Amino acid sequence: MANPIDRAVRQFSRLPGVGRRTAQRYVYHLLRQDPEQAKALIEAITSIITDLKPCKVCNRLSDREICDICSDPRRDEHTICVVGETSDLDVIDQSGKYRGRYHVLGGLLNPTGGIGPEQLNITSLVKRVEDGAQEVILALNASVEGETTALYLARLLKSTGVRVTGLARGLPAGGSLDHADKVTVGLSLDGRIEM
Amino acid sequence: MANPIDRAVRQFSRLPGVGRRTAQRYVYHLLRQDPEQAKALIEAITSIITDLKPCKVCNRLSDREICDICSDPRRDEHTICVVGETSDLDVIDQSGKYRGRYHVLGGLLNPTGGIGPEQLNITSLVKRVEDGAQEVILALNASVEGETTALYLARLLKSTGVRVTGLARGLPAGGSLDHADKVTVGLSLDGRIEM
Repeated sequence: MANPIDRAVRQFSRLPGVGRRTAQRYVYHLLRQDPEQAKALIEAITSIITDLKPCKVCNRLSDREICDICSDPRRDEHTICVVGETSDLDVIDQSGKYRGRYHVLGGLLNPTGGIGPEQLNITSLVKRVEDGAQEVILALNASVEGETTALYLARLLKSTGVRVTGLARGLPAGGSLDHADKVTVGLSLDGRIEM
Repeated sequence: MANPIDRAVRQFSRLPGVGRRTAQRYVYHLLRQDPEQAKALIEAITSIITDLKPCKVCNRLSDREICDICSDPRRDEHTICVVGETSDLDVIDQSGKYRGRYHVLGGLLNPTGGIGPEQLNITSLVKRVEDGAQEVILALNASVEGETTALYLARLLKSTGVRVTGLARGLPAGGSLDHADKVTVGLSLDGRIEM
């Protein structure tokens, strides 16, 4: 059907965990509010698909050449927290436990899925470490891919003499950072271990 | 912060029942998908704030002068189901139990809130009834406003000789007596049916 309401319900239903009834609630909510709210949502979605690009230092998705974290002089530049995706970076940062820099790999090693070291932002990480990092925290998912990537990076980086740590096993086995709560993420940062 | 991701998270958080973490999941989902999905969502939201207008017959929000239900010859035009909002109409129609026409009041009577009969689409309802309806089903919320509106319309329409009915009140499908409130149990006793 070409009905705008049905079309909007169908599009909202494509978001993760959103069923038909929830999508209807969203659509009718927007209809009842001032159109400015819908316009602000439209502009915000437009912005994430047009204005975002990888930061030239850490590869985090941002609207600047060099993101606000990499250009923040108050951030400890001798500690680099390595994450798989920009979304994982947000989870770590919102724990409030970390005030260093980040490096976004753009994925995790997955040999059977065709993701090798060349597909990830590893060369630029090694260069940043060689340029003067004192500690690299591997904040990767507690999944097979995350563990594989952590082992690979730990071996690769140890030759540079940097301290390499990983998140403590506060994360539930098999769990992804996306679904961990702030406290658990904070505890896993506090208890990070030598690798 | 002017960061597009934060802005999008904030806008999604304004939807009903959406917290920060859920909004983040929506935003990162859109970032991971083909941009076509975000564009389709943008177009769908744009359409509901620009293309919708009340149907000239039933006042349902639609993108046509006369909506697809009012112009569907297979719909029984002698039965009119009266609802408060277009969203209520969808709920009734998706039950699959009703194949007549509708009339959207555009709200419910709420004297203390300044909503009187003049603020609702009642004159056009009376005209439609006088033009040949046989039954009017008052499908209104089981709230004070809904009951008040139902009583008002029942009195007003009875003078035209039309049959006026209301939705049955009782236990929800699959609901247990254990969890029903006293008023609902009382209503289900009052409206008991022959078996």
